Amino acid sequence: MQLGLVGLGKMGFNMRERLRRAGHEVIGYDRNPEVTDAASLQDLVDKLAAPRTVWVMVPAGEPTRQTIAELADLLAPGDLVIDGGNSRYTDDKINSELLGGRRIGYLDCGVSGGVWGLENGYGLMVGGDAELVERAMPIFDALRPEGPREEGFAHAGPAGAGHFAKMVHNGIEYGLMQAYAEGFELLDAADLVTDVPAVIRAWQRGTVVRSWLLDLLVRALESDPELDDLRGYVEDSGEGRWTVEEAVNHAVPAPVISAALFARFASRQEDSPAMRAVAALRNQFGGHGVHQAGPSSGAGSTQAG
Amino acid sequence: MQLGLVGLGKMGFNMRERLRRAGHEVIGYDRNPEVTDAASLQDLVDKLAAPRTVWVMVPAGEPTRQTIAELADLLAPGDLVIDGGNSRYTDDKINSELLGGRRIGYLDCGVSGGVWGLENGYGLMVGGDAELVERAMPIFDALRPEGPREEGFAHAGPAGAGHFAKMVHNGIEYGLMQAYAEGFELLDAADLVTDVPAVIRAWQRGTVVRSWLLDLLVRALESDPELDDLRGYVEDSGEGRWTVEEAVNHAVPAPVISAALFARFASRQEDSPAMRAVAALRNQFGGHGVHQAGPSSGAGSTQAG
Amino acid sequence: MQLGLVGLGKMGFNMRERLRRAGHEVIGYDRNPEVTDAASLQDLVDKLAAPRTVWVMVPAGEPTRQTIAELADLLAPGDLVIDGGNSRYTDDKINSELLGGRRIGYLDCGVSGGVWGLENGYGLMVGGDAELVERAMPIFDALRPEGPREEGFAHAGPAGAGHFAKMVHNGIEYGLMQAYAEGFELLDAADLVTDVPAVIRAWQRGTVVRSWLLDLLVRALESDPELDDLRGYVEDSGEGRWTVEEAVNHAVPAPVISAALFARFASRQEDSPAMRAVAALRNQFGGHGVHQAGPSSGAGSTQAG
Amino acid sequence: MQLGLVGLGKMGFNMRERLRRAGHEVIGYDRNPEVTDAASLQDLVDKLAAPRTVWVMVPAGEPTRQTIAELADLLAPGDLVIDGGNSRYTDDKINSELLGGRRIGYLDCGVSGGVWGLENGYGLMVGGDAELVERAMPIFDALRPEGPREEGFAHAGPAGAGHFAKMVHNGIEYGLMQAYAEGFELLDAADLVTDVPAVIRAWQRGTVVRSWLLDLLVRALESDPELDDLRGYVEDSGEGRWTVEEAVNHAVPAPVISAALFARFASRQEDSPAMRAVAALRNQFGGHGVHQAGPSSGAGSTQAG
Repeated sequence: MQLGLVGLGKMGFNMRERLRRAGHEVIGYDRNPEVTDAASLQDLVDKLAAPRTVWVMVPAGEPTRQTIAELADLLAPGDLVIDGGNSRYTDDKINSELLGGRRIGYLDCGVSGGVWGLENGYGLMVGGDAELVERAMPIFDALRPEGPREEGFAHAGPAGAGHFAKMVHNGIEYGLMQAYAEGFELLDAADLVTDVPAVIRAWQRGTVVRSWLLDLLVRALESDPELDDLRGYVEDSGEGRWTVEEAVNHAVPAPVISAALFARFASRQEDSPAMRAVAALRNQFGGHGVHQAGPSSGAGSTQAG
Repeated sequence: MQLGLVGLGKMGFNMRERLRRAGHEVIGYDRNPEVTDAASLQDLVDKLAAPRTVWVMVPAGEPTRQTIAELADLLAPGDLVIDGGNSRYTDDKINSELLGGRRIGYLDCGVSGGVWGLENGYGLMVGGDAELVERAMPIFDALRPEGPREEGFAHAGPAGAGHFAKMVHNGIEYGLMQAYAEGFELLDAADLVTDVPAVIRAWQRGTVVRSWLLDLLVRALESDPELDDLRGYVEDSGEGRWTVEEAVNHAVPAPVISAALFARFASRQEDSPAMRAVAALRNQFGGHGVHQAGPSSGAGSTQAG
Repeated sequence: MQLGLVGLGKMGFNMRERLRRAGHEVIGYDRNPEVTDAASLQDLVDKLAAPRTVWVMVPAGEPTRQTIAELADLLAPGDLVIDGGNSRYTDDKINSELLGGRRIGYLDCGVSGGVWGLENGYGLMVGGDAELVERAMPIFDALRPEGPREEGFAHAGPAGAGHFAKMVHNGIEYGLMQAYAEGFELLDAADLVTDVPAVIRAWQRGTVVRSWLLDLLVRALESDPELDDLRGYVEDSGEGRWTVEEAVNHAVPAPVISAALFARFASRQEDSPAMRAVAALRNQFGGHGVHQAGPSSGAGSTQAG
Repeated sequence: MQLGLVGLGKMGFNMRERLRRAGHEVIGYDRNPEVTDAASLQDLVDKLAAPRTVWVMVPAGEPTRQTIAELADLLAPGDLVIDGGNSRYTDDKINSELLGGRRIGYLDCGVSGGVWGLENGYGLMVGGDAELVERAMPIFDALRPEGPREEGFAHAGPAGAGHFAKMVHNGIEYGLMQAYAEGFELLDAADLVTDVPAVIRAWQRGTVVRSWLLDLLVRALESDPELDDLRGYVEDSGEGRWTVEEAVNHAVPAPVISAALFARFASRQEDSPAMRAVAALRNQFGGHGVHQAGPSSGAGSTQAG
């Protein structure tokens, strides 16, 4: 079928390619003239035959909200907008109502798979009306991985359910990555295991911890066995934060996902104000560094506390 | 090759079968007369041709230590003992020295794969001398999964390295399971996603969180979509605890693995003494439940704190 | 000075008494006819001489927002409203602007001290304009504890800063209580310390952990040495959740405060969906409870994993 | 009474002074000739009248074990040794039996109070036989703070119970400090509170979070309002680690104390291997920094995940 695709960055560019390989006609729009197929959003809309389907794949938040607001003005009743970005699920109700007021359909679609999606396909979680989901199914079928549809695609529920499912997916992802990371560091810190990359490579088959993330860790260790070429500085995107917020809102204990998020926060701090406070307190009661408190000596020095 | 196998429980029974299918001659010993091939440890040893290889697959701790002590008396110089159980890595040095003193070889082998290992093969992590590892390689090759050897088998280092690697593997496993579990609970608690099992099933292909554990979760949800047939009561075996202890010993931050372990502890408590203390404190300062503290009223009741 | 006080619950009732003891004229309003001094909010306002000061001490959220909206209609330019409840700091900007539009002043005041405040005084954290703070200082001075003003009172910053400071105060409070609680449980679990209440009582003087909360724990243990009369079921109010949300928003690692919050969530669960998922996973890979997987025996049973 | 005191470091030096002020005769021994009263341990023992009481106040671990072994040789039946250092409670059984075999008494005493103990007194938790405790009570009474004995002193149980109680005390201390620290950082990170030290100072009276540690934080902020003169690098002593280990051994959930410990570990890492692993994984699946993965553009760039 024919699809308009707004946003041809790391994700959208590959998705256009995958859709085209599957025989779909994709007209892409991006502000980058080197990759775009249309001169403007208006031009994109003009190039599509009604009823149109436009997939939005731009950064979450303001860029997505603005793109959808513009599409609300440009599209016609009966058209369909799909937000495939990492939007917060609370935006979907707003978008859905804005477009619904003009009789334009709306679906939210959480997309997982990263740069591997071009070859492997993308895991898809969709929110919105069943009949709209059905209408866009050829697109979903082209984007999702080979195999049974239900193993790479879900109609998760009403508007917002797709992004909510993706948010939780990413929260889990934070926890999984941190679990492997802690294990890696412990193997590394204890000198007993002499070939850490070999051990992790050996976990790929037969073990309980085998996973795609593990395969990627093996891949990373192949080119950099000590991971020395990287710094332990880790960004976080919105989903991890939102997952913790939703857990708090729903009184769901989420110690692992929040610990993984906080580890990322800490990884970006040059120096921790909190730990300065702890150091200050130890100094205050234990006299650590307060040399006038009393003569210290070899056998005689017992740590205060 | 010929192998003696002590312990024919859930793991050992299946391993004997897998080894036999691969053409090895396995003589198993178990106290259970219905499954054993030998009348006693002595009988097992008598039935093996020197130099013997005996795989020990009995519960970690005292049973394993005792079995190895008995084997030390029964075996002869040049024989080889492999401990495939979930022993603490610190036992391996002791076992290695005990057997080494009698010129009996020793390998420790962490084995992962559970009840699926019979069909899928087992992930193996081995500690000990390279030449002993080489000698037992036909056994390892039969037990490990199909595919490249290094994706299901590693010689991790000297004695203890195999069990250390397995310990860390299980610590990671705790974190992975807890991450999925928190995500499952959050999907369940928020009413937005109307078909939680469908969402989790859809994560099996293409997504970042796909894994064998996820496949197992899908499997569990197939027969029990709300997991209502189970109680949230979770045992822990030694490895999770040891992983946290080793992290503490090596000053490795392990917030995720420890949080997963503590969640299991809490799952087994009818009532938490710690939370009773928190409840008592709130009562003390906030007068929660101390009705004589002051007249309360509708609009007038502001929570103390 | 003269003060109108809306809300005579657990907190407001005691505050009226403390203010009166200090010689202030307090006219209280509460829906409960047994404690109120005024028949209605209108009556309260009528009874106050302009320029009026009205302290709002009703439950956070809708009740407070509604009370302030009503006061905005009833009060006159030059009057002053102080919200002393546990409102979220984000409400203060709204209230401040609503009232400011009518030239009514607004201060937000975080109040700590619980049922003990009547005798001990209340710790106060105030947000808003300095001149309004100065104007209400006689009230603050009467409510705060004896001793230097700056040890029980702070002008924390502009509108919202008082409630923000109180929110963080309560977040810390969660962490402190949980720390004592974990220590209590560990003392209790290990049988070595034969008189746990005596040990905790002995921490009241000289030690690093001495605090008012510790004094309260000692008090609780006096009447119930095992804390057996209570259940380990702990509510949470908004501030703990908001603290975690703000930490997430500001990328501040808050592992301790969030762990304390999650422990409360878990304390209220009859059964944990997350832990059911973990139990289901262990069952799937380890065959725990799946008896057909293989004959188990005494020495032969090695735990799968 | 007469007391021998081995170790005149930060703690022992002050304790000698406090005991002398109380009228006790203290003969101190330290390897530092500037502070010692005796030339050697032998000399110390010679200077004491039988039955002797010797307080050991040297660093935990090997120094303490060695000192006690030497005293076992030098002392006579009927003498008494008190270990006041931060020894692990498991050492106490060993020491107690070693000395008991020579009919020398043994008490373990956890001592809290830091450099402030000289003036404020020390919180004391003692393990051992009641009659030995009674015998040394004049010393305990001189060291403990003014006020009721039971508020600064406890006979916690048999040998080891004193150090166990002190270990838990320190574990709690870790949690308390981290709770304050997280609150401090959050106040600091949000720009709303304009005078953070003023807010913390105002928590000293009337609030729920008032404590001695809070007073010390106020003190630290007085001289360094942003805590800029310090680095967020925090050591840990044995007790925090042992507390987590004991919690794990007794299946006691200790999320707060362990989080506080792990925060210290992380504070000392230049770069985190675990976070390098997370960064590597994000790079692998999201193409972060792998620029050849696909053309990126302005509006078109949607974060992969």
